[in-house]
Amino acid sequence: MIENPTSDNSGRFAYRGLDRVMHEKARLGILTSLVVHPDGLLFGELKELCELTDGNLSRHLQSLSEAGLVEIWKKGEGRKAQTLVCVTKEGQRQFLDYISVLEGVVADAAEARSATVRRQSPARQGWSPA
Amino acid sequence: MIENPTSDNSGRFAYRGLDRVMHEKARLGILTSLVVHPDGLLFGELKELCELTDGNLSRHLQSLSEAGLVEIWKKGEGRKAQTLVCVTKEGQRQFLDYISVLEGVVADAAEARSATVRRQSPARQGWSPA
Repeated sequence: MIENPTSDNSGRFAYRGLDRVMHEKARLGILTSLVVHPDGLLFGELKELCELTDGNLSRHLQSLSEAGLVEIWKKGEGRKAQTLVCVTKEGQRQFLDYISVLEGVVADAAEARSATVRRQSPARQGWSPA
Repeated sequence: MIENPTSDNSGRFAYRGLDRVMHEKARLGILTSLVVHPDGLLFGELKELCELTDGNLSRHLQSLSEAGLVEIWKKGEGRKAQTLVCVTKEGQRQFLDYISVLEGVVADAAEARSATVRRQSPARQGWSPA
């Protein structure tokens, strides 16, 4: 174990910037699709890209719209009605900030890829399984 | 809007590898701390690094332990009792796989950093706010 791993490292792995609205797996996919397509995506396109059901996609779009991250547009009537979803300017800004935090997580974990394996089993140092 | 964004891209943004156990914000912090410290961390150290309460940390450790991703060791009795938490070999493997998917999300979003802004407001193309 590294000597005093918490000195000056309080909250080092708290990842405060991982906003809960954007961090949810399906919403992460929706937002990435939308920032990659800044002119918007039709409901059906988004559903296919993110592999979501109509109900799930609608529910997540409502959360994102309430948070001001996406805007929803309509065209046509009845069976010809179409829905277009666009990321807002604020949504794009917040999402790119969120992605910067994810980059930090990936960088932290990359450190561990080359980490040495455990030097000794805890059992050899007098620890018992809980 | 890009011509037919879904051709050959079905599920492109579904991020199936974002395992729900590991993707939760607090558990992501706990696992990153643990893979960076392969000899384990004491409960109090983990709590401080991840800025979690006793109750929250216990609850998340239970989920991670049930999923076989961490192991929990005890030493001492009563007021001198200590808890050591280590990532398992399987936990390390699964977590590094998960991190590879996150790297993909970051790479997808990086594409959008340099993306052009929206060419035209949807309103100019006959769309109305929903």
